[in-house]
Amino acid sequence: MPDIIEMLEDRRFNDLRIFLAAQPASEIAELIAALHASDQLLVFRLLPRNMAGEVFSLLEYPSQNLLLENMAQDETRHTSRRSRRTTGPRCLKSCRPTLQGLLNLLSDKDRKQALSLLSYPKDSVGRLMTNRYVYAREEWTVARTLEQIRAMGNDSETVMMIYIIDERGVLVDDLLLRKLILADPETPISSLMDRQYVALHSLQDREEAVMVFKKYDLYALPVVDSEGVLLGIVTNDDILDVSEEEATEDIHKGVAITPLSAGYLRTSLSVLYRSRLPWLVTLVFVNIFSGAGIAYFDTLIGSFVALVFFLPLLIASGGNAGAQSATLVIRGMALGELTLKDFMKVLWREIVVSLSLGLSMSAAVFFLAWWRGGLRIGVVAAISMTLIVVCGSLIGMTLPFILRKLKIDPAVASSPLVTSLADILGVFIYLGIASALL
Amino acid sequence: MPDIIEMLEDRRFNDLRIFLAAQPASEIAELIAALHASDQLLVFRLLPRNMAGEVFSLLEYPSQNLLLENMAQDETRHTSRRSRRTTGPRCLKSCRPTLQGLLNLLSDKDRKQALSLLSYPKDSVGRLMTNRYVYAREEWTVARTLEQIRAMGNDSETVMMIYIIDERGVLVDDLLLRKLILADPETPISSLMDRQYVALHSLQDREEAVMVFKKYDLYALPVVDSEGVLLGIVTNDDILDVSEEEATEDIHKGVAITPLSAGYLRTSLSVLYRSRLPWLVTLVFVNIFSGAGIAYFDTLIGSFVALVFFLPLLIASGGNAGAQSATLVIRGMALGELTLKDFMKVLWREIVVSLSLGLSMSAAVFFLAWWRGGLRIGVVAAISMTLIVVCGSLIGMTLPFILRKLKIDPAVASSPLVTSLADILGVFIYLGIASALL
Repeated sequence: MPDIIEMLEDRRFNDLRIFLAAQPASEIAELIAALHASDQLLVFRLLPRNMAGEVFSLLEYPSQNLLLENMAQDETRHTSRRSRRTTGPRCLKSCRPTLQGLLNLLSDKDRKQALSLLSYPKDSVGRLMTNRYVYAREEWTVARTLEQIRAMGNDSETVMMIYIIDERGVLVDDLLLRKLILADPETPISSLMDRQYVALHSLQDREEAVMVFKKYDLYALPVVDSEGVLLGIVTNDDILDVSEEEATEDIHKGVAITPLSAGYLRTSLSVLYRSRLPWLVTLVFVNIFSGAGIAYFDTLIGSFVALVFFLPLLIASGGNAGAQSATLVIRGMALGELTLKDFMKVLWREIVVSLSLGLSMSAAVFFLAWWRGGLRIGVVAAISMTLIVVCGSLIGMTLPFILRKLKIDPAVASSPLVTSLADILGVFIYLGIASALL
Repeated sequence: MPDIIEMLEDRRFNDLRIFLAAQPASEIAELIAALHASDQLLVFRLLPRNMAGEVFSLLEYPSQNLLLENMAQDETRHTSRRSRRTTGPRCLKSCRPTLQGLLNLLSDKDRKQALSLLSYPKDSVGRLMTNRYVYAREEWTVARTLEQIRAMGNDSETVMMIYIIDERGVLVDDLLLRKLILADPETPISSLMDRQYVALHSLQDREEAVMVFKKYDLYALPVVDSEGVLLGIVTNDDILDVSEEEATEDIHKGVAITPLSAGYLRTSLSVLYRSRLPWLVTLVFVNIFSGAGIAYFDTLIGSFVALVFFLPLLIASGGNAGAQSATLVIRGMALGELTLKDFMKVLWREIVVSLSLGLSMSAAVFFLAWWRGGLRIGVVAAISMTLIVVCGSLIGMTLPFILRKLKIDPAVASSPLVTSLADILGVFIYLGIASALL
């Protein structure tokens, strides 16, 4: 012990490395536990690679966690200095032989926390991975693999699929447990393999993972890095959570709320306030244009006061139709049903539908306006209604496509935003037509 | 053959029954296949119960399907005459010994179709069931059960859980496949049982099933009827689809669209039209009140034209805040986080948050209105803004609770509806305050 602290203080790392390599793993574990947090990582890094895993597994739980956190922070800091954009993958690649191996020793919950520390991008598949999987090597026999299952299958829900890796840890196949059970114990695994499997990439967006799960109807999917190395699995129950969270996010964005990370009751009032304010204030400024539009036509309004009566009704209809169109398109995009190349198809559909809607609604409003303000106002209201509903729908439909094209989340085209934009247009269409015809 | 047709024509059913009971199953299967569709069911119903299953399995695929469809329609018609409300369960209960057993003989896809014919209520767990499960009896040994798995586990993804039933078909436990593999082949199943399991009820709402899946993180859950009889299982991949469909429904309802059953591009234009029109027209009539409100204050507007300038901005803010509140509450209810008894808690939170939002926004609007229309209009706009945002939020928050209380889907409180209601209130608040102060 005194030796080590001396060596650390004198920064004689090479001596220390040689000393450590000669000690049994259990001794080193005790030694590390006794050190300051800041020194623990230093010493741990000096261990030969083949020893690190063993020493780590011998450490007490809090030391493991501490070490891992420090390691992750250190790697992140180190890597982000080099390159901001590739923090996640580069870190994991550079330290995989130690860190990635160590992660597998942690409990599921801690592992997830560790993964988030390891700076997998938010909303990436990497953040969802667990280590509740069983792997086998292609050169093993069925009997050897079943033994592995007994040893590793601690959480048994997931052992129905065995992942076959090669000597570099690269995923080469997935194998149903049932195939193993039905096979002769001496069969080599390689003879059961078809080398066909579906895998997720650790940096893939988790929304894509939901789509892959929906497509293949599997319980779990393996996750690999860019070199095909098996990093973990993602299970369907996590995907269910993701699917609900993403839906909630989209629903919140749909009414211009910054998505909340927790449920309503578990969100603090100040977070609620801050998630709602920005767009409300933005929309105030957008709506100034509606007001300016009305003010622009004030002499017209002065002469035909009955016009004002139909103003809210007409501009709201445009906004409502626009919000419907925007929502249909945004949800279609979120579910992967609509892509940028569907623009013309959607445009055509929206023209037909919104024209039908506009004409139906203008019939209703015509008689209302005729009765309330005379035939001329009736005509103005009816023409305006059709135009406003069509234009509102087209704004609502186009905006998500434009945002998508600009690589902005289409959900930014929230109902309130589309409504406000359609309102502005509605004011000018209605009062413009009125001033032309009256 | 001629005998039978004669007996059918003469309606000598008892003779026919006795005749049939004496024939081998294979003969009867051929015989049924040769009959008219209308007679097939009649003959089939005359079979002794213990023969029906065997005969059914010997029929060709199209005959099976036809028989099942006729049977389902017949049962439904028969039951609905007795009682409209319990169509689903009573039908299945009354015909379980034949029909439910037969269902298990169908392929997964056909079974699902058959289940929908069998009038399980729309959106019930019963509609999601599949027969891709393996059952065992508690008196069996591990060896006998493994044999059963080999025989029944055709779709192997689902064999990780074995469902244990008693002699009446009642579910008594679920058992992990891994436990079987680890156990001695001669062990009786009963000694591995803990009699603890989670099951869904066939008539439960599928949204509840999503919550149960989220809670227990299982791959599959068994489905039982009111007597505890195992009817099938629901797997997580179906639940994922349900979760997405329900979210899409809620998102569509959120902008006053009758939920589409298919994706946007696969929905016909006329369905799109009809799913969007009703609420748009309804909202036209709601918005008449805003117009009436403005018309009511027309002399005031005539004297202070600058007031009109801020009208859209103020009433839109109330609508936007209201839509936010409504959406937060509706989504919270859909996820099971909010229930009726949370009303006071939510009310209190919304008062605090909306007051903060209103005050912040009134600060912005005060300076704007001061600059544009003078100090007095600034004061009117600022006071109105706070009141409108608070009232809009409270309308948005209260409406879903009221609807829920009235057993109406809270999602009816769509953003456009809340916005329209808040608009009406906004007009009266703003112009009311203006006429009082100016």
